[in-house]
Amino acid sequence: MENGAGNGAAAAVAAWNFAPNDALLSLTGLSVRGVLGRVKAGMVEDAGAGARPVVPLGHGDPSAFPCYRTAPEAVDAVASALHSGECNSYASSVGLEPARRSISQYLSRDLPYELSADDVYLTSGCTQAIEVISSVLARPGANILLPRPGYLFYEARAVFNSMEARYFDLVPERGWEVDIDNLRAVADKNTVAMVIVNPGNPCGNVYTYEHLAKIAESARELGIFVIADEVYAHLTFGERKFVPMGVFGSVAPVLTLGSISKRWVVPGWRLGWIVTNDPNGVFHKTKVADSIKSYLDISSDPVTFVQGAIPQLIGNTKEEFFNKTIEVLRQTADICWEKLKGISCITCPSKPEGSMFVMVKLDLSCLQDIKDDMDFCCQLAKEELVVVLPGCAVGYKNWLRITFAIAPYSLEDGLDRLKSFCLRHSKPKDVV
Amino acid sequence: MENGAGNGAAAAVAAWNFAPNDALLSLTGLSVRGVLGRVKAGMVEDAGAGARPVVPLGHGDPSAFPCYRTAPEAVDAVASALHSGECNSYASSVGLEPARRSISQYLSRDLPYELSADDVYLTSGCTQAIEVISSVLARPGANILLPRPGYLFYEARAVFNSMEARYFDLVPERGWEVDIDNLRAVADKNTVAMVIVNPGNPCGNVYTYEHLAKIAESARELGIFVIADEVYAHLTFGERKFVPMGVFGSVAPVLTLGSISKRWVVPGWRLGWIVTNDPNGVFHKTKVADSIKSYLDISSDPVTFVQGAIPQLIGNTKEEFFNKTIEVLRQTADICWEKLKGISCITCPSKPEGSMFVMVKLDLSCLQDIKDDMDFCCQLAKEELVVVLPGCAVGYKNWLRITFAIAPYSLEDGLDRLKSFCLRHSKPKDVV
Ligand SMILES: Cc1ncc(COP(=O)(O)O)c(C=O)c1O
Ligand SMILES: Cc1ncc(COP(=O)(O)O)c(C=O)c1O
Repeated sequence: MENGAGNGAAAAVAAWNFAPNDALLSLTGLSVRGVLGRVKAGMVEDAGAGARPVVPLGHGDPSAFPCYRTAPEAVDAVASALHSGECNSYASSVGLEPARRSISQYLSRDLPYELSADDVYLTSGCTQAIEVISSVLARPGANILLPRPGYLFYEARAVFNSMEARYFDLVPERGWEVDIDNLRAVADKNTVAMVIVNPGNPCGNVYTYEHLAKIAESARELGIFVIADEVYAHLTFGERKFVPMGVFGSVAPVLTLGSISKRWVVPGWRLGWIVTNDPNGVFHKTKVADSIKSYLDISSDPVTFVQGAIPQLIGNTKEEFFNKTIEVLRQTADICWEKLKGISCITCPSKPEGSMFVMVKLDLSCLQDIKDDMDFCCQLAKEELVVVLPGCAVGYKNWLRITFAIAPYSLEDGLDRLKSFCLRHSKPKDVV
Repeated sequence: MENGAGNGAAAAVAAWNFAPNDALLSLTGLSVRGVLGRVKAGMVEDAGAGARPVVPLGHGDPSAFPCYRTAPEAVDAVASALHSGECNSYASSVGLEPARRSISQYLSRDLPYELSADDVYLTSGCTQAIEVISSVLARPGANILLPRPGYLFYEARAVFNSMEARYFDLVPERGWEVDIDNLRAVADKNTVAMVIVNPGNPCGNVYTYEHLAKIAESARELGIFVIADEVYAHLTFGERKFVPMGVFGSVAPVLTLGSISKRWVVPGWRLGWIVTNDPNGVFHKTKVADSIKSYLDISSDPVTFVQGAIPQLIGNTKEEFFNKTIEVLRQTADICWEKLKGISCITCPSKPEGSMFVMVKLDLSCLQDIKDDMDFCCQLAKEELVVVLPGCAVGYKNWLRITFAIAPYSLEDGLDRLKSFCLRHSKPKDVV
């Protein structure tokens, strides 16, 4: 390590021979934000009168559209906790008791048993819930089973914690159900847990009671925990109603992850939870619960006044607000399904029934000048100002994830532009 | 892995042979919350009329006392961002641009050069800033130099990231200055950075310009980064004014960590920052800046409407609010200093000039029935309902960290009870 006497930049840099951590730098590629950043890199927004707006079909955050505006009761709940002056302090690491109690009661409505406040741990969104769980379960040699296609943030956090991420397949032709044989094949004695996302990101799936029962039985046979990411809970608009995985907590211990981000359409409020759905007390006996507490002791907490607002927020939000959101989602899912049928180089294996997304397959053989899904998305963003997530960002190369949770008029516009783009890039024989 | 067919608890537990992660479980011992939890475990709060209140001299959070109530302008800023409906979305990983710009200007007031918005990364409190920095700097074999006594959260995060934590001494007789010779002695070629906390937790130190210059020169010689934890910035009430370490950013690259938690007395609002103070651009060249971005891509963010409130919060808070807080802190530091002089088994090497804490030495030889600092604090909590942090929680066995940032009448009451406790437990010869 050399030390220059001068203050010049060259001398200074010579002195600090820090080696960048390439593994960390590459994790950006496993985050939706990181990949969307690359997609948008070459996009130049139109300016001036009559400029085409950017259509954001890339990420799951409809909160900027007036038709998804959150419930006024939710805003009031937070405002009153803020103004009370009683929620300016640090909270306890597991979260404020009234908030935990209220979430336990909210979730118990859909369960065959009662959760207690002690089953609930508050986190800074479901994002931090995933961070916590991954930190708690990781150990040398361990692996975790993730769905493919999936939400790669689980892989990013597993990799960061030196845990192996293995994938099991979802079956597009069967409404993206878990391929149970494949699940069994990838598990081994070092497998600690499996993840399901229901309602699904990126697939828009909603699993039946029977399918969830099968997943629980398999987890039991394999002796692994189930991590149920239910951040899209209750956002269903098809035939199937949402069934929480916790219903099967006595078959296999379930860690349910959730947040207010999606159902209340307030992802910026950063309040989520980890819930132990475990009538047999396995998480206590194996010290998973203590480990969660320990990790939370050395982590930042969700904002105290948002925690303080939770009882009112849950208690006061009217059914009409939830119904209205579902109505708009049903409408946009329909638009999406119909419009996609008219685009020849894209196929959609099943109509989304929940969440905010649909997966579609790109037929590259019909397209010219397009290398792969990433290339498709970059060119689409540049030419049409339509942002779509390439399948590589969800572990499914040459597919696309399309978010339909935006305003209906905007969605129609975006899908029309997507169609023009595909037509323009079709190989001659395909041009209509 | 065995699998019982029944649903009974015994069968279920047999099936899930998860081995708890003892290293993670033990990190609780490195957190102030974890240790205070143990101190308070045996405490039974008085009930009924005339009950003695608990006096919280353990943690640095005065926000519950009316005399430290935050500025109304700060509350208004957050309320108006919340009500605008424009801050319900996810923010970008590095944080909203107006907030970053406003923090860069706020910090530039005290620097010989101008920071830009790009130098600022928003975090969920200084807590997450420490998590990010530790995750970015850790690599196999690396070590980080921490002050002793210190804020052990740095060690917890280093250990969690498999980075070695080494300690250099602070010198009680010299206002807790860094022992530079000792610093040099513990550094080696695998040292990536050193941490200073100024104004200091747990010591109440405020470093002079000259001392900070010396630290910067040493860091330069050693070729290591300086992490300056300035979460208590501007909370000074002695002779010395606060000087930010960033002043020396061209001597050695400085990562400044801060938050609104302490100066605005709103630790529950969870907004902090990492700032690159680095006119020579070393953090860009060594990809530390990119690594921070990557880690933030896979982390939860501070609440968007708190980010949105920052320009107004910084712009509108009146000097009177800051002055009032400082006045109360000066008064309570004085009370603490005077009252401690009258307790014979406790010595205080230097009067605190900043932050919210003072370190005092326990003379165990004057006390009977008391094993160590932890035992002292547990018995004190039980008998007097006074909560004080044992030195072991800041790496300084058989000392105590006392928080004076509470209401003056409460502090007097607490210190009087501490005195009775010491008298009652003094060895016969010492009883007055
Ligand atoms: C499957 C899934 N899990 C977790 C999250 C994170 O949600 P939160 O906003 O609660 O952090 C998302 C966000 O899009 C998601 O899609
Ligand atoms: C030295 C030091 N750094 C960081 C923090 C964390 O502060 P924040 O509330 O911004 O997370 C604290 C809190 O007490 C502290 O004392």
